[in-house]
Amino acid sequence: MKKTTGRVTLPSQQHFLQETKELMERWGADALRDSDGTKLDDEIKQLNAKIYTTYFVARNHNDFAKQHLEEMQQLYLMSPYYTATETTLEIPFLKGYFEEQITPDYIHDPKRWWEVIDRTTGEVVSPDYWQVDKATNCVTMKQVEQWHEYTVSFLAYMKWDPTQMYNHITNDWGDTPHDIPFDVRQPYSNQYVKAYLQQWLKENPDTDVVRFTTFFYHFTLIFNDLGKEKFVDWFGYGASVSVAALEAFEKEKGYRLRPEDIVDKGYYNTTFRIPSQAYLDYIDFIQQFVAKEVKELVDIVHEHDKEAMMFLGDNWIGTEPYGSYFPSVGMDAVVGSVGDGTTLRIIADIPGVQYTEGRFLPYFFPDTFYEGNDPVIEANENWLTARRALMRKPLDRIGYGGYLSLAYKFPKFVDYVEKVTDEFREIYDNIHGIQPYTGLKVAVLNAWGKLRTWQTHIVAHGKWYKKAYSYHGVLEALSGSAVDVSFISFDDVIAKGVPEDIDVIINAGDAGTAFSGGEKWKNPQLISILRKWIYEGGGFVGIGEPTAYHHEGRYFQLANVFGVDKELGFSLSTNKYFTEVTDNHFITEDMVAFDFGESMEYIYALNEATEIIEYSNDGVHLASSGFGKGRGVYIAGLPYSHENTRLLLRAMYYAAHKEGEMRKWFASNVHCEVHAYPERKKYAIINNSTEKQVTDVYDGNGNKRRMELEASEIIWEDFT
Amino acid sequence: MKKTTGRVTLPSQQHFLQETKELMERWGADALRDSDGTKLDDEIKQLNAKIYTTYFVARNHNDFAKQHLEEMQQLYLMSPYYTATETTLEIPFLKGYFEEQITPDYIHDPKRWWEVIDRTTGEVVSPDYWQVDKATNCVTMKQVEQWHEYTVSFLAYMKWDPTQMYNHITNDWGDTPHDIPFDVRQPYSNQYVKAYLQQWLKENPDTDVVRFTTFFYHFTLIFNDLGKEKFVDWFGYGASVSVAALEAFEKEKGYRLRPEDIVDKGYYNTTFRIPSQAYLDYIDFIQQFVAKEVKELVDIVHEHDKEAMMFLGDNWIGTEPYGSYFPSVGMDAVVGSVGDGTTLRIIADIPGVQYTEGRFLPYFFPDTFYEGNDPVIEANENWLTARRALMRKPLDRIGYGGYLSLAYKFPKFVDYVEKVTDEFREIYDNIHGIQPYTGLKVAVLNAWGKLRTWQTHIVAHGKWYKKAYSYHGVLEALSGSAVDVSFISFDDVIAKGVPEDIDVIINAGDAGTAFSGGEKWKNPQLISILRKWIYEGGGFVGIGEPTAYHHEGRYFQLANVFGVDKELGFSLSTNKYFTEVTDNHFITEDMVAFDFGESMEYIYALNEATEIIEYSNDGVHLASSGFGKGRGVYIAGLPYSHENTRLLLRAMYYAAHKEGEMRKWFASNVHCEVHAYPERKKYAIINNSTEKQVTDVYDGNGNKRRMELEASEIIWEDFT
Repeated sequence: MKKTTGRVTLPSQQHFLQETKELMERWGADALRDSDGTKLDDEIKQLNAKIYTTYFVARNHNDFAKQHLEEMQQLYLMSPYYTATETTLEIPFLKGYFEEQITPDYIHDPKRWWEVIDRTTGEVVSPDYWQVDKATNCVTMKQVEQWHEYTVSFLAYMKWDPTQMYNHITNDWGDTPHDIPFDVRQPYSNQYVKAYLQQWLKENPDTDVVRFTTFFYHFTLIFNDLGKEKFVDWFGYGASVSVAALEAFEKEKGYRLRPEDIVDKGYYNTTFRIPSQAYLDYIDFIQQFVAKEVKELVDIVHEHDKEAMMFLGDNWIGTEPYGSYFPSVGMDAVVGSVGDGTTLRIIADIPGVQYTEGRFLPYFFPDTFYEGNDPVIEANENWLTARRALMRKPLDRIGYGGYLSLAYKFPKFVDYVEKVTDEFREIYDNIHGIQPYTGLKVAVLNAWGKLRTWQTHIVAHGKWYKKAYSYHGVLEALSGSAVDVSFISFDDVIAKGVPEDIDVIINAGDAGTAFSGGEKWKNPQLISILRKWIYEGGGFVGIGEPTAYHHEGRYFQLANVFGVDKELGFSLSTNKYFTEVTDNHFITEDMVAFDFGESMEYIYALNEATEIIEYSNDGVHLASSGFGKGRGVYIAGLPYSHENTRLLLRAMYYAAHKEGEMRKWFASNVHCEVHAYPERKKYAIINNSTEKQVTDVYDGNGNKRRMELEASEIIWEDFT
Repeated sequence: MKKTTGRVTLPSQQHFLQETKELMERWGADALRDSDGTKLDDEIKQLNAKIYTTYFVARNHNDFAKQHLEEMQQLYLMSPYYTATETTLEIPFLKGYFEEQITPDYIHDPKRWWEVIDRTTGEVVSPDYWQVDKATNCVTMKQVEQWHEYTVSFLAYMKWDPTQMYNHITNDWGDTPHDIPFDVRQPYSNQYVKAYLQQWLKENPDTDVVRFTTFFYHFTLIFNDLGKEKFVDWFGYGASVSVAALEAFEKEKGYRLRPEDIVDKGYYNTTFRIPSQAYLDYIDFIQQFVAKEVKELVDIVHEHDKEAMMFLGDNWIGTEPYGSYFPSVGMDAVVGSVGDGTTLRIIADIPGVQYTEGRFLPYFFPDTFYEGNDPVIEANENWLTARRALMRKPLDRIGYGGYLSLAYKFPKFVDYVEKVTDEFREIYDNIHGIQPYTGLKVAVLNAWGKLRTWQTHIVAHGKWYKKAYSYHGVLEALSGSAVDVSFISFDDVIAKGVPEDIDVIINAGDAGTAFSGGEKWKNPQLISILRKWIYEGGGFVGIGEPTAYHHEGRYFQLANVFGVDKELGFSLSTNKYFTEVTDNHFITEDMVAFDFGESMEYIYALNEATEIIEYSNDGVHLASSGFGKGRGVYIAGLPYSHENTRLLLRAMYYAAHKEGEMRKWFASNVHCEVHAYPERKKYAIINNSTEKQVTDVYDGNGNKRRMELEASEIIWEDFT
C-alpha cells in the first residue's frame, strides 16, 4: 500500500514531543488533540498539525458556578414506590439517589412544581393532602387511599456533572472539585458561556479546532446512593429541565407540561418508549433552544477563525444531529466514538457539517494497554466492523484517544495502526463523495424515524442489552450492506406515505416499544397505506414483534403480510397445522446454523400460503408470505453476525421480489462483501473475517470469478 | 392385599359372557356398561351387576331430526379475514369450514342476525352496504374502506354431531348416517327428548343406570374443509347458540347480544379469555336453561327407579358441575375420563351428586392393545398420577372403557388391573368421607374461580399445549398435595374479600389470559384487598406472568410483593444490580435441577430486599420477597414433575411463613408422599415412581423414620 498522510488525529500529552513526531509520521497524522486528563505542550502545539482543544461549555467553571448555584441544572426525578399501609404515608423521596449528585429544589414551590401520584389509579394527589419536610427530605401524606402505591415526582438540582462524576469516582480523583453544571437558559450562565468563550479563544491562539465536549445538557445519567450508575439513557433529555424551561415551554407551545410528562412513570421517556405528543413537543422545544445557543457559540468560534467541532456524546442533548435544527447551527465537524458499523454510520451520515471524524478503539487506556495483552486484537475487530460501514459512507477523518505514551509501548500496535491509517486513506481517496452501488433502498420504520437515524435500540452507547441485541444486529448488518438505508416514522408514513423509491421497509422490535410501534399500529391510515404499498409490490420485513398490537383478533397487525402471527394464548383452540418447512428457500441458501438471538416463541403460520423457512421448538422463526405483488418476511430475531447479515440481505431481496438482482457486486462467501463505485469504475472486495477466505465474486453483470483473500484483506479492482 | 369386590365398572360386549364373568370376578366389578360401538347381550345383562346404558339425548335420533331440520343446532362462526384491495369486496365466508358439518342459516334474516366487521377499526359495517349471495355463500360488500380487513360473523346450522363426526371420520364409518344434533330449546325437540326417554326407559328394563352422553350441547368442535379439527374448546358454548336462545336471552337479561359477543374476534370466548360481562351472562343463561331441562330428564329417570349418570364431556355444555345450577338437577352420578390427578379431582370434587366414577386409562382400543405393546406401562403411569389425587379425595368408583375382549388378550394387564382395583378399594375403604390431614389452605385465583375448579389452562381435554403445560403443572402438583385447594375469582375477592382461612393464594398464567387476569389487575379494590391480606400475613405465589397488566410503571401489579417485575424494554435504562442468589434457600432444599418449562425471561429483582433463589441466563426465575407479615414467591413456570411438586409445596409453606409445619406427615424423598387421616388414625406412604425409593417419613409430630418402598408401593400404617 502506498504511504499517505492526513485525515488522522492523535492524542498527545506533555513531555512526549519526539515520540509524537515519530508516530505522526508513521500514522500520517495531521491533527493533535488533548484528552480528558492530558494537556499538550507548547512545543507539541507548534508541530505541523491542526490542534484540537477540548472545551467544556457548561461545566468545569466552578468559580462562576458557585456564585450562581440557583442556575444549576435541574432534573425531574421520581421517588421509589411506597405502599400506604395506613391512612398516612411518608415518602423519603430521595431514597436511592446519590446526594452528592442530587439535591431537591426547595427554591421553587414544590406544591406547584412537584407531583404526588397514586400509582394504583394513576391519579394525581391534590397538594392539599401532602407536605414536604425539607429537613428530612420527606413528603408526608394524609388521607391516603390505604394499600395504594404512591410516588413523588420532585424537581431537583444536579450538583455534579455526570461525566466528570463518572470519571472522578472510577479513577478515584479524591478531593478534585466536583464540576457543577450550570444552565445556559439562566441569565448569568448564558452571558458567562459566551464571554468566557471569547476570552478563551483569545488565550488559545494555537487551537485550530475547538472540540466542544459537548454543549449544555448531559444525557440522563443518575447515580444511586452507593455512587453507582442508577439510570442511564443516552437520549435522555432529563437534565434539560428547569422551571425556566417549563415556563418558556408553556409560553411557546401554549400548554403547561406536567411533571409526569417528563417523569413518565419512572421510564423518563427512554428512546424505547413511544413518544407522547407532549414529549415530542418538549424535544422540539429544547432542540430549538439549544440550536440557537450553539449557533451563537459557533459564530464566536468562527469570528476567531477557528473551527467548531462537536463531540457526539456527554452533553449532546438538544443537538441531535438528525433533528430539524442541527444543520442551522453551522457546526464545522462532528466527532464521535466508533464502536461498530452502526456507530460509524451515526457519525458519517450526519448532514450539514464540513467533515466527520471517528474516534476508533481501543482507547489508549491501561485497561487495554497492559503487559501481556495484545491491543491489536481489539483494534482489528473494531476496524473490520467499522470498515464495512466506511465502504458505504466514509468518515472524513479517523483518530484515537487516551495516552499516546501507552500505545507507543506496543510496537505491534503501532505497526497495525500504520496499516489501518493507510488503508483508511486509500478507501477515502477512492470513494469519498461517490455514491456506492446500491442494490436496494431500505427504510427502517419506527416511532422516531429520521431523528434517530442509525440510533435504534440504544440505551447506553456501546452497552450490550439482552433485550436489544437481537434487534441491534439489524442495524449493524445494514450499516455495511450494499443497500441505501433511511429511517422513517409512523407519522411520516401517515402524513406523506411511503417514500417513492423504497424497495423494502423494516420494522423490528419488541411489542409496545417505539421500534415496533405499539398503539401506532391501531391507526387505520398507517395500516392502509402500508397494505396498499405492499400489495402493489413493496417488501416488508418484520423482526421480533413487528406491527404488534393486540387488536381485533390480530397481534401482528400485518399478520397477513408476514403469513404468521404470535399466539398469546387466546387462539390455542384454533389448530395450527402449518409447520412444514419449504425446502431450499432463497433466503436461507447460505445458512449453516440459525441464530435468532433471544428469538421469539409461539409464532405460528396463518395458513398454507405461508412459506415456513425455519420451524423448531414448536414455532416458526423465519417465514414469508405474498400479498398482492408484494411480500412480507418474518424473522424472529437477528443478532449481528456475517451469516445473519447475509440472511437479512437475502430476506430484503426476496421481500422486494428482486432475487435476480442480488448477485451483482456480490461475494458468495458470507464473510466477504463487494462494494462498487460505478462513477469511479472501481470496486473493492473485503474480507470481514480474521481468517483467509475463498469466495466467488460477482461483477455488476453477474459474472463471477473465484478469489482468495487474506485475513482482513481489502482488494481494489478497476472495471470497465 | 385382601381380595375385595365392588366399585368397579367394566365395559362388555356381545358374545363375551364367560370372559366377562371371569374378569368381573378377578377385578371385583359390580357394574357393566356398553361403549361406543359395543352392545351388551341379554345374558350379560342378567349377571350380578348394575347395568349402565349409554344414552344420547340430542343426537342419534335422525328419524326425528330429519323431520325438523329447522330445529338443528346452531353456531355463530367467523369467516377468515379478507383485505379490501378495491372498493368492493367479496367474502366467501364458508371458506375453511367443513360443509358436511356447517350450513349457513338462511332461514333467519342475515341482515338481522349476522355481522360484518371492519377488523382494522373494529366497527360494524351497516347491513346497507352488504348482501348475501346464498347461491355462492358469499357476502358482497360495496363502498368498503380500501385496505381494511373484514370478517363476516354468520349464523350457521350444525348438521353433524361433532363426537360422532370425529368417530365417523377417524374410524372410517363410510355410509353410516350422520347424527344430526337437534336443539332442546325448540318446541318439537323439547317434547321429543322427554317422550323418547319415557319410551326408552320402558323398553330397557335391564338398565340400572342411564349413562347420559351427555345432554344437549356439544363443546365447540368445528372441522375444517379437509374434515380435520379446526377449532376445539372443551368449554366452548358455541353450539348452544340459536335465534331462539338469543331472543330468550334478550327477554331474560334485558339486552340483546351481538354476534360479536359470541364470536369474540374469532377467539369464541375460549376459557383463556377474560370473560366479558355479556359472556358471563350468556353462560349463566344457558346453564340455567340446561339445568332446568336436565332436571326434567333426571326426574323421568327417577320415576322409572333408575339412576341418572352424566358423562362429563361431549355434550356437557351448560352442565358445568361447579356452576350454580348443577346441584339442583338431582343427578345421581358423574363419570369422567381420568388422565391425571387434575382430571381426577375435577370429577371427585363435584358437589351435589351421590357418587362419582372415573374412567381410567388405557381405553381398551387397538391403539394401545396391539401385539408387542405392554398396556401395563400406560396403566401404571395413569394409576400413579391418579392415585396421588385419590388420596386427597377419592372417586367412589373406577372403571374402564372400550373392548373388553382386547384387554382379555393381555394377561399381564389383567393381573395388573386386579391389583389396581384391589388397591383402589383398600384406599376407598380407608379414607372415603374422611378429611385428610391438610397442611395449608390454598386458593387458586383467576377470572373463573369456582366455576372452573381444577379446570384451568385446558383447551382440549388431555391435549398438551406449549403455552399451557408450564401452568397446568401447578394444578397437577396441587391435585395430590396435602393441601386444601379452592378456586376463587377476582370478582369474588372484590365482592367478599379473601376467604377467612386461606394461607396461600396462587395466580398462574400468561399475561392477559383469564388465568393471570389482565385488566382485572387494574382494579384498585382488588389490588388493595390483596395487598392488605398479604401485608397481614398472607402468602402469594405467582407463576409465569402473575398480576401482569402494564400500568403506571409496573408490569406485575404486585411486583413489590414478589420482589420482581418483568422488563418490557421500557426500563432498560434503570440498572439491574440484584442478581446474587440466596444460598440454601428453604424453597430449593430438595432441588437437583430446575425445570421452569417454557419459563419466563427478562424477570429482574426490584431491590436488595428480594431473595433471588434462581438466576440464570440474565434473569430471575425463582424469587421471594417479604411484604409486611406476608410473603410473595415468584416462579417462572412449573411443568409437572415430582421435583416441581415439592418446589411448589415448599414455595407455599414459605409464602405462608409456615416452614416449620411442613415436616408433618411428610416424606423427604420427592418421589414419595404421606397422607394422613387423623379421624381414622391411619396414614399411607406412597411411592409415586416406578422405582424403589428410600425416604425419611415424618409423622404428625415431626418424628422421622427411614423407610423403603417398592416401585409404586403404597404402605398403610396406624398411629395413636
